[in-house]
Amino acid sequence: MSATLPFHQWMAQRSGSNAGVVARSLLQYGRTSGVIGEIIARQVASDEGVQCNSERVLVTAGCQEAVALCLQTLCADAGDAVLMRNPTYIGGSAVAHLAGIPIYQVTAAGADLATAIDGEIRRAQRHGHRIRALYLIPEFDNPTGEVLDDADRRAVLEVCARHRVVVLEDNPYGMFRFDGTPSTPMATLDNAGSVIYLGTYSKTLCPTLRVGYAVVPETLWGSAEAAQSLFDELTLRKSYVSVNTSAITQAMVAGFLLQENFSLRNWIQPSLARYRQNRDRLLLALDAEFADLQEHISWNRPAGGFFLTMDLPFEFGNEALKSCAADHQVLVMPMSFFALDSSQNRRIRLAYSYLSTNDIGMGVSRLGAFIRARMEKRS
Amino acid sequence: MSATLPFHQWMAQRSGSNAGVVARSLLQYGRTSGVIGEIIARQVASDEGVQCNSERVLVTAGCQEAVALCLQTLCADAGDAVLMRNPTYIGGSAVAHLAGIPIYQVTAAGADLATAIDGEIRRAQRHGHRIRALYLIPEFDNPTGEVLDDADRRAVLEVCARHRVVVLEDNPYGMFRFDGTPSTPMATLDNAGSVIYLGTYSKTLCPTLRVGYAVVPETLWGSAEAAQSLFDELTLRKSYVSVNTSAITQAMVAGFLLQENFSLRNWIQPSLARYRQNRDRLLLALDAEFADLQEHISWNRPAGGFFLTMDLPFEFGNEALKSCAADHQVLVMPMSFFALDSSQNRRIRLAYSYLSTNDIGMGVSRLGAFIRARMEKRS
Repeated sequence: MSATLPFHQWMAQRSGSNAGVVARSLLQYGRTSGVIGEIIARQVASDEGVQCNSERVLVTAGCQEAVALCLQTLCADAGDAVLMRNPTYIGGSAVAHLAGIPIYQVTAAGADLATAIDGEIRRAQRHGHRIRALYLIPEFDNPTGEVLDDADRRAVLEVCARHRVVVLEDNPYGMFRFDGTPSTPMATLDNAGSVIYLGTYSKTLCPTLRVGYAVVPETLWGSAEAAQSLFDELTLRKSYVSVNTSAITQAMVAGFLLQENFSLRNWIQPSLARYRQNRDRLLLALDAEFADLQEHISWNRPAGGFFLTMDLPFEFGNEALKSCAADHQVLVMPMSFFALDSSQNRRIRLAYSYLSTNDIGMGVSRLGAFIRARMEKRS
Repeated sequence: MSATLPFHQWMAQRSGSNAGVVARSLLQYGRTSGVIGEIIARQVASDEGVQCNSERVLVTAGCQEAVALCLQTLCADAGDAVLMRNPTYIGGSAVAHLAGIPIYQVTAAGADLATAIDGEIRRAQRHGHRIRALYLIPEFDNPTGEVLDDADRRAVLEVCARHRVVVLEDNPYGMFRFDGTPSTPMATLDNAGSVIYLGTYSKTLCPTLRVGYAVVPETLWGSAEAAQSLFDELTLRKSYVSVNTSAITQAMVAGFLLQENFSLRNWIQPSLARYRQNRDRLLLALDAEFADLQEHISWNRPAGGFFLTMDLPFEFGNEALKSCAADHQVLVMPMSFFALDSSQNRRIRLAYSYLSTNDIGMGVSRLGAFIRARMEKRS
């Protein structure tokens, strides 16, 4: 198990034991909150500028588990509800649906977001609901690719603190910025003690490790006891969902982070370069393919992340998805799949992270053929 | 990653690919229901005599996740309730509590169990609830160590089939029988298509692998479509809880099973011998320590598993647990911790699996000193 050895050696050094003893001890049922909190805390501080107490790091079986635990713990009582952006990451809304947690939504973006959040929190109150959590991906959102700027982040934090709404800041794509200045994580801007910071090693290291984490703040609304109690509740709930995260995959992540001196910046350079190249190729292809249709079709120019949003002059739902795939051999995601209402019916999400750069031109041509066929049919 | 290589080679052979390509493909997000269902199905058939369709094996992040998924999927509607034995494994009841699923209970054992189940299902109906699932560990129950014989299993299956209650048969200890004839798993006795068979590699291989499984029957109440639909619902729910089980730990389990020719019987021999030796030593020590107290204190003589139940002439709760640990340096579990009512207040669970044999005599002496001190204080 060479991949886990660096962690076993590190643990052995700390405990004055030896790596073999540590390795054997880790084969048993382990601490529910995990064994690599300190190493994760150092990486998150180094790479993302988020300072966190290693005793407040809950290691989870992938970040999806962290999202599920947070929503179910924060919205445990009747009348508790969650607020999400619209469209939003399916893994967030599906957890709420399955757990029977009412979902409120804000479709506004940018400078309008905080005002819309305030309005929706009040609307929920009028319906007898209490918004307990706001789930969002402020950096290169999935599905939109959007980024919230610092001023908008502060405004959202202020509104949430006023209403005592916990912010679940999910940041899977933050390390994948191609241009411009990195944003400040909301967990770093947070003065009220209101942000749970969620992260994953699926995008930086490997999805099948299934290692993610939730970082609970030092104080929750100024109370250290409330923060500790929230951490304990999350941990208890995890003990009944998955007992603990495999210490084998934890040790693999930790071994990696130790070898890389607590930073993944160097390690992700090749992927980052490839994603940037794909983004560039995609924008060039779109510009070329749709040069004559720019009054009908538009798209954003993401500075990072995996996704681009495209606005179409017609509805693109399940039927279009199938026809586009079967007749034109290209897969794009209807934005309505991520939506909580009908506002996204004419939008699609293009993902450029997994493709090889050379396939992107062909993909865009095929999409172009589909779109032209549809537009002709309509006119 | 030598531990995973046999599985990668096996997959490669099937797909006409090579092990490197397979290993790389498994690093990505994978099939939610898992990639080692066929190998698990062969081991379960070989070791436990349960025939299962490999396409109905849902690989989970430990068996606890399987329990949670099954309860939440089967009891998803208002009024749905679960039936458990009393006392019961905490991981079962806690999931129901957290999910807000009403719990009904039966304290009866042996030949009275099926009648009690029938009565409790009817009682639930009178309360406007519908029992959807019965959770039980028929072989070396945790916490009691009890075994249900074949006739009692059939009677329970008959009652559950009549009321369309799904039986969640959890079998973590079945491989650890010291004497007597192995029981027939309820999944094998099941003619109605009503048993979901739950298993784990935590006891046989290693807890921190966090690999367990749920096997959905070929037909549910005679309907293949209903069984498929249940499997699909479980899988969908898993996708929003943990996306999929780490393909690394899955490949480790599969690699192991391939090397052992799909049977863990040989592999567990050393643990089985040690557990048997511990059980024998514990019974001898109890017989010796409590020879003069046999009219006040009794215990069962488990033929397998990890646990023994002891009946005391006084209540043993949180206070006794602490005093016994602090003043006599021995830990036993109050049975009331596993109970849904006050019927277990004078019972304790002794676990003999984790101790070294030589420590058992000392543990029993210490427990004896505590019990004698309590009995003197009372008289």
